[in-house]
Amino acid sequence: MKKHLLSIDDVTTDDIATLFETAAEMHDVQRRQVKKLPALRGRTIINLFFEDSTRTRSSFEIAGKWLSADTINITGKGSSASKGESLRDTVRTIAAMGVDAVVMRHAASGSALQVSQWIDAAVINAGDGTHEHPSQALLDAYTLQRSLGSLEGRHVVLVGDLTHSRVFRSNVLCLTKLGAQVTVVAPPTLMPSGVDAWSKQVGFATSYDLDAVLLSADAVMMLRVQRERMSGGYFPSAREYTVGYGLTRDRLATLGGEVPICHPGPMNRGLEIAADAADAAQSLVLDQVSAGLAVRMSILNHLLAGEGSNND
Amino acid sequence: MKKHLLSIDDVTTDDIATLFETAAEMHDVQRRQVKKLPALRGRTIINLFFEDSTRTRSSFEIAGKWLSADTINITGKGSSASKGESLRDTVRTIAAMGVDAVVMRHAASGSALQVSQWIDAAVINAGDGTHEHPSQALLDAYTLQRSLGSLEGRHVVLVGDLTHSRVFRSNVLCLTKLGAQVTVVAPPTLMPSGVDAWSKQVGFATSYDLDAVLLSADAVMMLRVQRERMSGGYFPSAREYTVGYGLTRDRLATLGGEVPICHPGPMNRGLEIAADAADAAQSLVLDQVSAGLAVRMSILNHLLAGEGSNND
Amino acid sequence: MKKHLLSIDDVTTDDIATLFETAAEMHDVQRRQVKKLPALRGRTIINLFFEDSTRTRSSFEIAGKWLSADTINITGKGSSASKGESLRDTVRTIAAMGVDAVVMRHAASGSALQVSQWIDAAVINAGDGTHEHPSQALLDAYTLQRSLGSLEGRHVVLVGDLTHSRVFRSNVLCLTKLGAQVTVVAPPTLMPSGVDAWSKQVGFATSYDLDAVLLSADAVMMLRVQRERMSGGYFPSAREYTVGYGLTRDRLATLGGEVPICHPGPMNRGLEIAADAADAAQSLVLDQVSAGLAVRMSILNHLLAGEGSNND
Repeated sequence: MKKHLLSIDDVTTDDIATLFETAAEMHDVQRRQVKKLPALRGRTIINLFFEDSTRTRSSFEIAGKWLSADTINITGKGSSASKGESLRDTVRTIAAMGVDAVVMRHAASGSALQVSQWIDAAVINAGDGTHEHPSQALLDAYTLQRSLGSLEGRHVVLVGDLTHSRVFRSNVLCLTKLGAQVTVVAPPTLMPSGVDAWSKQVGFATSYDLDAVLLSADAVMMLRVQRERMSGGYFPSAREYTVGYGLTRDRLATLGGEVPICHPGPMNRGLEIAADAADAAQSLVLDQVSAGLAVRMSILNHLLAGEGSNND
Repeated sequence: MKKHLLSIDDVTTDDIATLFETAAEMHDVQRRQVKKLPALRGRTIINLFFEDSTRTRSSFEIAGKWLSADTINITGKGSSASKGESLRDTVRTIAAMGVDAVVMRHAASGSALQVSQWIDAAVINAGDGTHEHPSQALLDAYTLQRSLGSLEGRHVVLVGDLTHSRVFRSNVLCLTKLGAQVTVVAPPTLMPSGVDAWSKQVGFATSYDLDAVLLSADAVMMLRVQRERMSGGYFPSAREYTVGYGLTRDRLATLGGEVPICHPGPMNRGLEIAADAADAAQSLVLDQVSAGLAVRMSILNHLLAGEGSNND
Repeated sequence: MKKHLLSIDDVTTDDIATLFETAAEMHDVQRRQVKKLPALRGRTIINLFFEDSTRTRSSFEIAGKWLSADTINITGKGSSASKGESLRDTVRTIAAMGVDAVVMRHAASGSALQVSQWIDAAVINAGDGTHEHPSQALLDAYTLQRSLGSLEGRHVVLVGDLTHSRVFRSNVLCLTKLGAQVTVVAPPTLMPSGVDAWSKQVGFATSYDLDAVLLSADAVMMLRVQRERMSGGYFPSAREYTVGYGLTRDRLATLGGEVPICHPGPMNRGLEIAADAADAAQSLVLDQVSAGLAVRMSILNHLLAGEGSNND
């Protein structure tokens, strides 16, 4: 495995298999009462979040603590970045304290890659602009694989605001790498420019017709749509978005009761996903959260524990 | 003991006796140099505060750490709630990570009860709107009991902004449950509507005349008044509030040097309590804080450690 | 050693020698994979920051965690201070929980001293207004001593906004105490009033002419200038500040490649320090950060661990 996790491009299918195997073990730990492994004792992990986050930050923080690492939170607000310091100086300062890993979220696409070139610590990209969010894609794939048995040849449909979604980008790379047939669906205004070339290169399909695509779906992943985008620029109204691209009650009925439904959260109930769909028996939304912790423990463990065992 | 601590109604007098017994042991730990018990090792406690808090959050956080639990702070600001997620989805997401307890504060009365119905983890209500704040009432009663020997038949006077006070509600329930005679005093505009029926049901007295009531007080608890309420709507001026309902230097003299004085803090010195009263030898304000940690360690221990001993 | 670290006046040269000896050991721990010492297990350290800080807060937090202490962060925002509580009540409340040390930053000069008179816990001043920041001065001196061998008789030049700098004040005291010859350089508007009397008392030189002073410098420490001060009141423009008092590329050439360059950060690249100087081989900026952690571990260890060994 590479030193950093910046993009799904950083992991091979073998790496993913290894990560998922460890994640399954971590999943068992999660069900214990004493959720504590000594693997990362004496290692220090910085959660450096320049953008707000509850679930990703908490998930990484708990994952680190359960592996016995020291975890420190630094947010953009109240940081020296707000005093005019450059990102490079901020992260080199943090790294100079002797930390082992930096889990970072930043509004700029490509920032995680840049940071990985500036410091010695392992860098985990927890979301860089509209670029990637690889741990989210890994936990989504892990969840779907557990549900479907294998992703090989299965038809996974991603729906939502693809233009602004780092989750979309990482998921397409991860799911196709694991053999899934992927179709991405969005209204024309929220389909990223350049998607045609990229879809040919990576090997996935695009569509503007959700109803047609759902007919052959083995799994559906609804992506968050920001309400701010629902007026003017991107879409006439929230209501029309829901009619065209929401996982409504009607579409849920069409889908049948077996096809798993994912959403990375936070969900806009009534906008991109109906409450009935979010709470359906086939909804994996909370499984994703639970898997998220296991997968992140696995990621931290593989990036940090391996090297430590022999030279400490 | 019940699984959650949402209201003083959740604990019997036997439960309270058990909680106070353990709290007394925890109080001893607090005086040691190595303040660390292994009781909750491997358990995870989330401090989920949608409203600002220093003392309650820190108190629970330190209590958790001294019991060796992993503690994670999540605040309303920067949380997914600010991205339009429902409270139900937010807490189910947190719970799905595999946490053992959620200590929560929220502006909506009844929110802690709701949350306890949505998740499996133990829920501790650290303040829900104007409804309850049971750990505060338990620590207040513990402090008074240590000072007075027993609360049975003792006259405890609560004074302040009762309309907006969750501390008032929990304290009345707790103190009467422990046999105290309770009188609550407030100006008419800050006396809650419906207090007559409630006072008959629970068994406590109400009064608008602080000076008369203080004559027979065995203990006085001053509640915080928010300065924002001191103009127009509730009271003509801060000065007039103090004259009518503050624990002034004159009232302190009337009270004598033996009657214990409590305040849950943060205090408005010069408004509801004079500096002389806050700093008097009979003031238990800092004892309350110290007891708060012991009582919260006891609560966490009883809610979380018990079940763990046999099935891990 | 005294109980608190409020000012460099609190430590003797012997104390500093002891602190640096332990810091050197801690520096070795920092290079290990398992960065964890049991020294402060069961002790509780509060980081009480009323002003924003990334590096100082994180540095103390990591230092505490590596020594196995429980560390709790409390910030000014969201604290009871914002509810009108006095500083005295806030810190006495925190202390009453049974904490062992309070690391504090506050906008008021002298606040750390006041707090140390109000509570029993050890107080570490992490910056009080424009007064002092002793741990920063100790880490700067430690870094320079490692670079120069000894500070005895060496000429150290401090440049920048001295009027608003607590780092300047602590550094002058610390460096002169260790035998350095100190010259402080600033534009007249940023030279503190009363500096003449103070420079005679402590024994350091002042100058408005950076180029002249640099000719004999054995080390240069550039201090941060806040951009807000660069218009009107203090200086005509940022550009003119740089020309007169910045460590520019030209001045770097004059200095030669051996003279160490320090900056406590966060740096304003292009304002008080050119990128070439910040990134030069002789720049100790990141060494300061790394030493900061070691020196703070040493400080915490000396203030807290000593007493603990015999009476626990």
